[in-house]
Order: sequence, then C-alpha cells, then structure tokens
Amino acid sequence: MPRFFVDSSAFSDGKITVRGDDAVHIGRVLRMKPGESLTVCDEYGVEYACVIAAVGQEILLDALSSKLSENEPPYRATVYQSLVRSERFDTVLMKATELGVSSVVPVIASRCTVKLEPREYAKKRERWQRILSEAAKQCGRGAIPRVCDPMPFSDAVKDAAKADLPLFCYEAGGTAPLPEICSSVPSPGTVSVFIGPEGGFEQREADEAAAGGMRMTGLGNRILRTETAAPYVLACLSFRYELPGGSSL
Amino acid sequence: MPRFFVDSSAFSDGKITVRGDDAVHIGRVLRMKPGESLTVCDEYGVEYACVIAAVGQEILLDALSSKLSENEPPYRATVYQSLVRSERFDTVLMKATELGVSSVVPVIASRCTVKLEPREYAKKRERWQRILSEAAKQCGRGAIPRVCDPMPFSDAVKDAAKADLPLFCYEAGGTAPLPEICSSVPSPGTVSVFIGPEGGFEQREADEAAAGGMRMTGLGNRILRTETAAPYVLACLSFRYELPGGSSL
Repeated sequence: MPRFFVDSSAFSDGKITVRGDDAVHIGRVLRMKPGESLTVCDEYGVEYACVIAAVGQEILLDALSSKLSENEPPYRATVYQSLVRSERFDTVLMKATELGVSSVVPVIASRCTVKLEPREYAKKRERWQRILSEAAKQCGRGAIPRVCDPMPFSDAVKDAAKADLPLFCYEAGGTAPLPEICSSVPSPGTVSVFIGPEGGFEQREADEAAAGGMRMTGLGNRILRTETAAPYVLACLSFRYELPGGSSL
Repeated sequence: MPRFFVDSSAFSDGKITVRGDDAVHIGRVLRMKPGESLTVCDEYGVEYACVIAAVGQEILLDALSSKLSENEPPYRATVYQSLVRSERFDTVLMKATELGVSSVVPVIASRCTVKLEPREYAKKRERWQRILSEAAKQCGRGAIPRVCDPMPFSDAVKDAAKADLPLFCYEAGGTAPLPEICSSVPSPGTVSVFIGPEGGFEQREADEAAAGGMRMTGLGNRILRTETAAPYVLACLSFRYELPGGSSL
C-alpha cells in the first residue's frame, strides 16, 4: 500500500490533508480515486490506515485506524555528528536512517576541518533533510528523521546530556564499555550518540562532555572511521533495545 | 611503532623475514636500521614485537615477544556476501574489516544481477584483497581479512553451516531474533553471516539454507540495504561477544 509522511499541520477536523508533491503523486501519478486506501505516517511514528475522501489540488483522507509503527525503535535516538566531509556526512545520514535514528544534530567541534558559514546553513539543512526523507521512504521508516542547523559543541553537549542514555564516543581513556553502560539503563526513552570528526575530539571537549553528564564510551580496540561510528552504535542499540530478546540476554 | 603484516612463509629458523614492498618501505622510506623496533602481525592475529637484525633486499627480524592482538575479536567471523554492484561490495569489504571480519566469501545467489565469468575471478579477487589489506592497516587490525573466489550458493551454504554460529539473514518469515540466537551460543569460535543480493534470497534458497543447518534470522522491521546488513550484524556480534560486558548482560 502506498505510504506517505505528513506533519501535524495535515491534521484537522478529523481529516488528514496531503499537500504538495505527495498530493500530485497520489492524484496524477498513482491516479488514486476516492474510496481507495493508503497509509500515512505522522512525525511521531504513528501510522494511519486511510481512505481517500476527495482528490483535488489537495488529497483529503479519512483515517480509519491508527497504530504505532512497528518499524520505529522503542527509543528516540539523536546522533550528534561532528561536521565531516560531505560524502561522509551523507553516508551517516543514510545509514543512521536505516538503523533507526530519530534526529541528527550537526556539531561544530574543535577539530572539524569542514567549516560552514551560518548563511550556508539553510541550503545545507534542506539538502540533508532531503537525504533523510528519501532514505526513510526506502527503508520503510514510520517517521522521517529530522536534522537541525549545525550547533556549537558546548550547546550540543548541553542538549545531548538531557537524554536517558547520553553516550559520548571517545577513543582515549576514561571510558566504559557500551554493553555495561546499556545495562545500567534498561529501557531508555531517549538516547544521544555523540561522534567526533576525523581527528577525534580534543581532551578538553571530552572533559567538558563528562562534566556535563555524558557517559563516555569506547567502541572497541579497532579504529572506526567517523562515518562508521554512528551506524555501529545505532546497530548496538537496535540489538540491545529493539530486537526481541536483546534486553533479556 | 610501525606495523606490518606477514604470512607464515615469513617465519623460519626463529627469524621473521619481511619481503617485497614492505621491505622497501622499512629500508628505504622509513630508513630503519638494525637494532630498531617494529611490530609484525601474522595471519592468525598474533602480534610480534621485533628488533631488526639485518636490512637489505629483505628485512630480517628477531622476535622478542608475541601476544594475541587485542584488536581482533574473540571469534572468527566469515561474511558470505552475495555479489552486488562493485561500489556496494567494496563498501562491505571496508566496513566489515573495521568491524572485525576474518574472511569474506563472495556468493553467487539466484537473484544476483552482477555476473562474473570465472576468468575474471583472479583479477577481482586481487582487487578485493587489496581493499581488505588497506582497510586492515588503517583500522589497526591484528590480521588481514581474506577473500576467496566467488562460490556457488549451495557450496557456500555447506561451508557456512560448519560454523558454531551459522547466521542466515532473511527478511521473510521463519526467522528468530538475532539476540535470541546469540544467547543460545554463548561463546562461538566461528560465526558465519550470510547476506543476500539487492533483491534478497529466493524462498528455495532460504529453505536450502535452513535444511543445511543455518540459523535463520531477521534484522528487524526496517529494510536494510544489502551493504548495511553485514556491518549491522558484525556490529551486533562485536557488542555481544567482543566488548566487555556484552556476554553478561
């Protein structure tokens, strides 16, 4: 069944309205008619089984039933990815979407070699969001992950530390193994995953993160590329908290 | 300390001989002299702390001590990756190396759209091996993963089924969650990970694998791309069996 994503502005008076490109796609490409069925997903991972009420510039839908998408993890994971070269950042966006990320925060860390001017943010962000949306449709996500404007390191740490499971990936000392940290938080509602740039975090950044309440974790003895780190952690979270049996090993 | 990989032909009479490009690198690029120290790793993940005994066309080393590399997982994982488009296959090789794979077997499955003639095998295999070797040096592996010639599906299943933990990743029904399967094998010495091509395995292939003793597992509800699947499973194995605390969750 065709699947579309809508945001909260689509809901009013018990109806759901699909606008823009998706409306064109439903009406002109798929040539769907009133009475036919489709699925829409809102931004919270809820899926609505709908019947088309009217087809025009906009598509008007009646929602017959709703359920939490089974394709969303039981936690909201935010990846705080330090800015890296464009093709690497794009890879993180795509893989993280497949692996269940809810939102991505680009972080301006001390050793980032990629510099963005604030005037470039809007265009970059639009591009990043498009990558997330496309990946979400392809892998059957129940909600589209969101990306925000790049955030300075200190602000990002303050934001990330609020999560139930605030992970700061750091290859130098002072860290605890990921499985041990996970065991101490059996059922997190929110997870943050902080990943450094190619050259890693500076010690003072790690100190600031630790002081701010982040849980410092290493990712084993091999050196993971920056674009492998977030997918690695998201896979571990999926194994531990999402797949049946992971919590009761 | 400089790190080089050697195979068993390098060992004789209590000495280790480094030949070829690595010998040139040690002698002419690094300009190392007798008495200086370096590390060599054999193909079993053993690291030797060595002192240079003689520098010439070949480099002769005395091994002072040896230990099992701490960068190798406690299991030998073989990825049976169905042939896919070249850039995707290369991605699997690189990511799998970072994530601890021991060997890669290219598999000729029914829905593979990539066809290779046997006369192309040697050249392809050389290219694949080069990618594995380069990735192994970059991520600090203790041993270089190996790749073999493409193998027909049935032969590959027979080979894979010999592992202590023989995993066949299949998105259709009849599967058990990965954490549950892992719990039934607390400490595997060998693991195989079977991954399908872009269009997935045919039902009859899955049936043959199950009948042959493979453990059928799904990878959650989202649709992972073929090049994401092996890294996902290798990350889960690392979390479960390699990182401290993963086995005692």
